[in-house]
Parts: sequence; C-alpha cells; structure tokens
Amino acid sequence: MFDPIKVIQEYLRFPSVSTDPDYKEGMEGARSYMSSLLESIGCSVEVIKTPLHPIIMATLNDDTDWPHVIIYGHYDVQPADPFDLWSSPPFEPEIRGNRIYGRGAADNKGPLLILISAVARLLEKPEQLPLRITFLIEGEEETGSPSFGGFLKQYKDKLDGDFLLLSDTGCISPEQIVITTGLRGVVGIEFEVTGAQSDLHSGFYGGAVLNPIQVVSEICASLHNQDGTINIEGFYNDVREVPNWEIEELKGIESSEDDFAKLLGVKQFYTSNGYSPFAAVRFCPTLEFNGIGGGYQGEGNKTIIPSKAFAKITSRLVADQNPEEITRLISEAIKERCPPHVSLEVKEGHGGSPYLVVPPDHPNSTTDQSPTLTQAFRAADRAISDVFGKPPLYLREGGSIPIIADLKNVVGLDSLMLGFVTPSDSIHGPNESFNLDLMGKAIDATERILASIANSREN
Amino acid sequence: MFDPIKVIQEYLRFPSVSTDPDYKEGMEGARSYMSSLLESIGCSVEVIKTPLHPIIMATLNDDTDWPHVIIYGHYDVQPADPFDLWSSPPFEPEIRGNRIYGRGAADNKGPLLILISAVARLLEKPEQLPLRITFLIEGEEETGSPSFGGFLKQYKDKLDGDFLLLSDTGCISPEQIVITTGLRGVVGIEFEVTGAQSDLHSGFYGGAVLNPIQVVSEICASLHNQDGTINIEGFYNDVREVPNWEIEELKGIESSEDDFAKLLGVKQFYTSNGYSPFAAVRFCPTLEFNGIGGGYQGEGNKTIIPSKAFAKITSRLVADQNPEEITRLISEAIKERCPPHVSLEVKEGHGGSPYLVVPPDHPNSTTDQSPTLTQAFRAADRAISDVFGKPPLYLREGGSIPIIADLKNVVGLDSLMLGFVTPSDSIHGPNESFNLDLMGKAIDATERILASIANSREN
Repeated sequence: MFDPIKVIQEYLRFPSVSTDPDYKEGMEGARSYMSSLLESIGCSVEVIKTPLHPIIMATLNDDTDWPHVIIYGHYDVQPADPFDLWSSPPFEPEIRGNRIYGRGAADNKGPLLILISAVARLLEKPEQLPLRITFLIEGEEETGSPSFGGFLKQYKDKLDGDFLLLSDTGCISPEQIVITTGLRGVVGIEFEVTGAQSDLHSGFYGGAVLNPIQVVSEICASLHNQDGTINIEGFYNDVREVPNWEIEELKGIESSEDDFAKLLGVKQFYTSNGYSPFAAVRFCPTLEFNGIGGGYQGEGNKTIIPSKAFAKITSRLVADQNPEEITRLISEAIKERCPPHVSLEVKEGHGGSPYLVVPPDHPNSTTDQSPTLTQAFRAADRAISDVFGKPPLYLREGGSIPIIADLKNVVGLDSLMLGFVTPSDSIHGPNESFNLDLMGKAIDATERILASIANSREN
Repeated sequence: MFDPIKVIQEYLRFPSVSTDPDYKEGMEGARSYMSSLLESIGCSVEVIKTPLHPIIMATLNDDTDWPHVIIYGHYDVQPADPFDLWSSPPFEPEIRGNRIYGRGAADNKGPLLILISAVARLLEKPEQLPLRITFLIEGEEETGSPSFGGFLKQYKDKLDGDFLLLSDTGCISPEQIVITTGLRGVVGIEFEVTGAQSDLHSGFYGGAVLNPIQVVSEICASLHNQDGTINIEGFYNDVREVPNWEIEELKGIESSEDDFAKLLGVKQFYTSNGYSPFAAVRFCPTLEFNGIGGGYQGEGNKTIIPSKAFAKITSRLVADQNPEEITRLISEAIKERCPPHVSLEVKEGHGGSPYLVVPPDHPNSTTDQSPTLTQAFRAADRAISDVFGKPPLYLREGGSIPIIADLKNVVGLDSLMLGFVTPSDSIHGPNESFNLDLMGKAIDATERILASIANSREN
C-alpha cells in the first residue's frame, strides 16, 4: 500500500537545490529516490542527461493507444537560506499539526506526490488501468529550465500525449481549490549607462556632464504612463481581450482587497486600467524594475558624478504577447530614449511565452480541444466539487512556468493545472510547508480524474 | 634659513587621514609637526580642542594694530587607498623630476607650506615685519569641517582680521596661475521610498503594487528640465547674474573643450542654458545624483518588486543661493512628487553657502571692500605677473569650501584665494604630487604680496 505521508517525509530529506553546485549530492539523491519510486509503482524509468541536471522520464503502458497523459513536475527546490528563520531545519522534514514543514514541501515535492500517489492507488486496484502515462520530472525548474528546450526538441515524438497534467500552481484556501487556466510569460532586459570613464568630483565637474543616474532614471520613468499602463508603442497590440466570465470568476476569491493589502504591507494598490489588484496580477502585462544601481550607496554622502548606472527589468506577458517581440520593443524604447551624451549597453535575457487554456463549457471554449482534455476538465470539476465540497475556481495565475507554453508551442499539449498550493505554504520563503489534509483530499480527487479518463476510453 | 623642500619632505610623512580613526597617530604627528614649525618661525601657538580633530591657531604680532591677515589651511588629508595604484608609498614622499609625490602634497600640505614659507622668509629679514598674522589650520577639512562652526562662534573675536589668505584651490597650469574668486555651496539630500513590507514576487504580485524603483526614477527624472536646468520652482530665484568680465576671463583657459572631454572620457558635454562646460562648472548651480539603489543588483536576474529604493542627491549652489532655502525647495519637491501609494523618508544634510568675492578694478567691484584686501589683490596681480610671467586669471571654482563662506558670514572676512594646484596634481587620487618649481615661484610671489601689504601700512 503506497503511503504518501511516509514518501513525502523521505523525499523532503534530499536538499535538491538546483542553483547551487554545492547541492549536487542532494540533486542526485532526490533524482534517484524519485526514479526508484516510479519504478516501484511499475514505470519504466529513463534518466536523460542534459547540460545541467538530468530529466526523469518514466512511462507506463508505453506501447498502448490508450489515452496518454503527460504528468509534469520538478524534483529541484529553491535555496533554503536564510536558514536561521526556519523553525525546524529545512531538510529535516517535521510534521506539526496538519502540516509538513521542509523546503520543497509545497514547491513542488508535495503536489507532485499527489499526482504520483493517485496513479499508484489506481495501479494497486485489481482491474487494469487503461491509461498511458508519461512522467516528465525535471531538475531545473527553479533555475529557469535552461535544458528543457533542447530536451523537448529531441524527445518531442515521445510527448505526443492528449494533455499535460500538473500541480505547480496555487489555490485560494484548503477549501477553495483552483484550476489554473493561464500563466504569464516573462522577458528580462538589463541596461547600463556609462558617462565619464570614472567617477567625477561633483564640484569640479558638476554642470558639465550628463549624470548616468539621471539618464537611467529618465529612461525608467518614461516606460510607464500616468495611468499605470506601459508607455511603449505596440506593447499591448497582441493582448487578447479578457472574457466576462473570467472577470466574474474573480468574485470567488473570498479575501478582501484590504486583507490583501495588509498581507503585502502596502498603503494602497496601484493598478492600470482600473483593474482590481486580483484582476491586475492575472490579466495585465507588466514592466517591472527588479533592481537599480549606480554611484555611492553607503552611509552618508560621496560627492561624485558616477561613471555608470544600470537598471534590471522584467516584463510579464499575457496571451497572446510574443516574448521576442516584446523584448525587441522594450530594447528599442530604451535605445531610442537614451541621449547621445552617454554610452548604452542593453542585455536581452531569454523569454518565456504566456500560456492560456480555455476550459470547456464557457462562451469562448474552443472546439478543437483534445476530447481527453475536455473530459479531464469536466472530471476535475466534479471530483473537486465532490471531495472539497465546492467547485474549483478557474483562474489565471500571475507567475510564469515557461515550459508549459513551450510544450503547447512545440508538441501542441494543453494543460490541466490543479492548483493545490495555499497562500499559507510560504513557497520560496522560510518555513515552507504543505497541508497534509489537503494532500489527502487532492490525491482522492486526482484519482477520480484519472479514473474517469481511463473509463471514458473503455466505454 | 627656512628650507621648504626639507619641510615638505618631513611633513608629508605623517598619515593625517581625518576620516579614519585608525590614523589618529598620523593626525597627532602632523599637528605637532605643524605646531613646532610655526613656533620655530616665531608664532605663539595654541592647539584648540574640538569634538573631533583640534584646530591649530598660531599668532604673530598679536598685540599690534598692524594689518591683520588670517591664513587658512588644513593639516588633514584624503584617505590614500587604493594603495596599489601608487608608484611610491603615499606616506613615504619621493621626489621624481620636479615633483614631490605623496598624499597631501597638493591638498593641502604643499600649498599651505607656500604661505608659511613666505612668512618665514619675511621674518628672516633684519627689518621688522609690520604685519599681524593669525594662522588657522584645521584638521577636519576632508571630513566636512564639522567642528568649525562651533570654533568660529567661540573664537570670532580673535578672527577680526582684514582678510583671509589661503591656497586650497586650482590653477590652469604651472604657467597660468589663478586667483579664485568664488566657490560653489553645497547641500545634500537623500530620500528612500518604501512600498510593500518586503520584496514581492513580480509574478504573483506584479501589476497590483507601485514599484519603489519606479517612484524613485520618476521623482529623479522630474528634477531636471529638457534643457538641463533644474525643475524646482524658485530654485534660481536668488542666483546673481554673472558679469561679462567673468565670462571673458574664461578665454584665458587655454585647453580646448575637446581636450577637456578626452580628459574626463565623456562622449559630449551636457550643460544648461547654452553655457560652455568651463562656464557651467563655475556659474551654474547643479542638482546631481550621487547614488541610487534598490532591489537586486547582482549577476543575472531576481524577479522581485523591491520593498525599497533610494537616491542620494547633492546640489551645488552659486551666489546668492541660500543652502537652507534650497534644501527646503528640493525636499518639498520630492515630497510633493511622491505618490500616496508608498512611504517616503527624506533626510536633509548640512549645507554650505556659496562664496563670491569681486576683485578690485572690475565693473562690479564693491566700494566697501577692506582696503588691505584691495591692496592684497593688486599686489597679487603684480607679483604673479612678475614671477610667473603672466597675470593671473580671476576664476570661480566649481568645488566647495564651506568654511570660506562661514568666515564671511560670521566674521565678515573676504578671501584672497591663490590657486596653485594644477590639474596634473591628482588630488584625492593615487600618486598625488606637487610641482616644486611652481612651489618655489609661489613662495616668491606670496612673499611679495605680504611685503606689499606690510609696507602699505608703514608708508
């Protein structure tokens, strides 16, 4: 009998931090634990080398023409520092109340184990499970999945499934589960302005040269309009209109704007186009300054005109914005707005596309959706309603999982994203935890979803 | 016989860095060397305690009613780091060619020794020197002279001189000496903007909150107009018009704008109101960004909306701008322009007034100038013309020596500033040096100036 509580306790012990080479052993440990786990339930497991961290691909009923579900997850976790803010060591999982504490508990070890547990339960039953399943478990999600594109090109024929099933997104509360229908894309740009060849005395030379901090400030200030929208021609050209039902769906978010403001500790929200904060993070593209620097930043003052200043920008994209196009537009805006008195260097980062799926039975549902996915959506709605006592909300999420859009663009897979991470789980922060009651219910619900797909093909 | 070359070699050995408590011994060494030196030429020396570094006050003919010259200088020096860029150790002075290398050689040990040497030479002559002299040599110039105001209040009766003589400013070249007629004032302001209580994930929350970097950028960008002038109402209200002769005088600066641009390593100059760079640094007030910071500044990217961002500003003032008033105007502009979504903290620093003296025989010369100073100006013009072969230029300087304005405002002293520091002297930088040929000539010229004042009273 597969015991998810025992499994998560063992699995969380591996410090699988993908961004830090010091955790190589932890990565290997998590990978081999996961491989064995999948073998133990009956999968054929292949560990595929990449330039950085290998990808685990595990298959079940690979030679059948049964409905084919690709289950995605990742075995790497965020760094755990600052360690001193943890109540129990991040890689010595501890159960307190109905929660298990440890780095990766909610992102993504717990939620991935929900999906695996559901498969394991179905496989324990005497009847055959007429489902083809491919697990795709990567080790670079927390470091931007740099190897995933190459893997996808090479293995796309093996990923010719009916849909992608994953649980790496959030819900509202343990009672209000979310089916995530969209993710924002993301692009990164950094620029540096150089004036004089070295810092200058602001007394001797002040008034004669253009200050790079002034240039960086003026460029940054030019990138938004007074109403909060982004002041770059063409930036909004491809943005798909948000249908009414998605705006209505936001009413299901029970927390008030006041509570939300208190949670973040902001005096008041600031959104564009009159959107509520809950709508803005889901429906609006952004241009965000992640960092700025230049000149003297220590205590007191140093009367210099700095030689250099820079800013780091990321932009979140919504359907149907194109990352290459948006990168080009931002980059050109910066170049056009930089005066000739200074030198400018613009660095363009890699981009990730936004993703949007329309669930069935809505005014804008598409007719060409995979019938298996349509079935899965309907089954998920029923299962979550039954198990959690409330139907799921269908919400986009503001974050980005670029490989979801890649899988859509390269192999045509749409995703059913079961959001099981609650706002209390503190993902990426200290004392990350996962609700074990929710986990139990979620396994139940997922088991029902998968069973329903399997049965639909049999009948 | 007073030997200035021997004296400067001994005096430069004391590492009198005023900003760093580790150099306490070096400060004491320089102070006691200077005190003994002044005693050796016949002065009564008093070392006056202050909250930080003592001030040396030395007097000559204190009980006479002879013309009274206050000679100002400082015994402290800038820190010498980075040490590895020095060709010889900064506190082991070395003569190479016609230059002496060492920290403080040009700022201000060499130039101060010019003035002392001239007095020493005059005192060696058999005839009596009918001059009253007060040396005022502080140890906090490089750290903003925090104790000087308090000293001034307490000792102002002893500083009831005819004028202040100093040499702590620059010239054009060893052939083209400058009499400095003005210094800019300076005020400092720093502001910090806080949005959310901690850094936020730019995916989950981007679009809902105002980014502090955006606010800081927008405030900074708002502070200048397109033409380079400062966009704060009232900022220019008190600026005194620059007379034509001062603009004509700039023609005596022989270096070209191209050479100046190459020296600084800027692509092109940027000035306000169509001023040349040489004019701008002397005649224009500035609002300069010395530092800016916020969010993630390391390699790569971190997709956050930072909690905080800040900027550090100093403004250089010209006659007759008032530091308190300008500080208030900048501070209010920042506060008015900060949106209500974020918190703002503004820190106002101490200010220093601008200083301007009009030499005699110019269209705007004043009639109420001390006759002794008028005499000194004329003598300086003659002496520099005779000794250096070319009359001095009368130029303002862009830097600030706030105590010069304080001495004017509190005790009514105007200044004769002999600029002997050349652009090659690398003050504040590694390999600071002073031209010993120039030093010899400058002692000659200063001796003639002082002799002329003394004689004027006798006759």
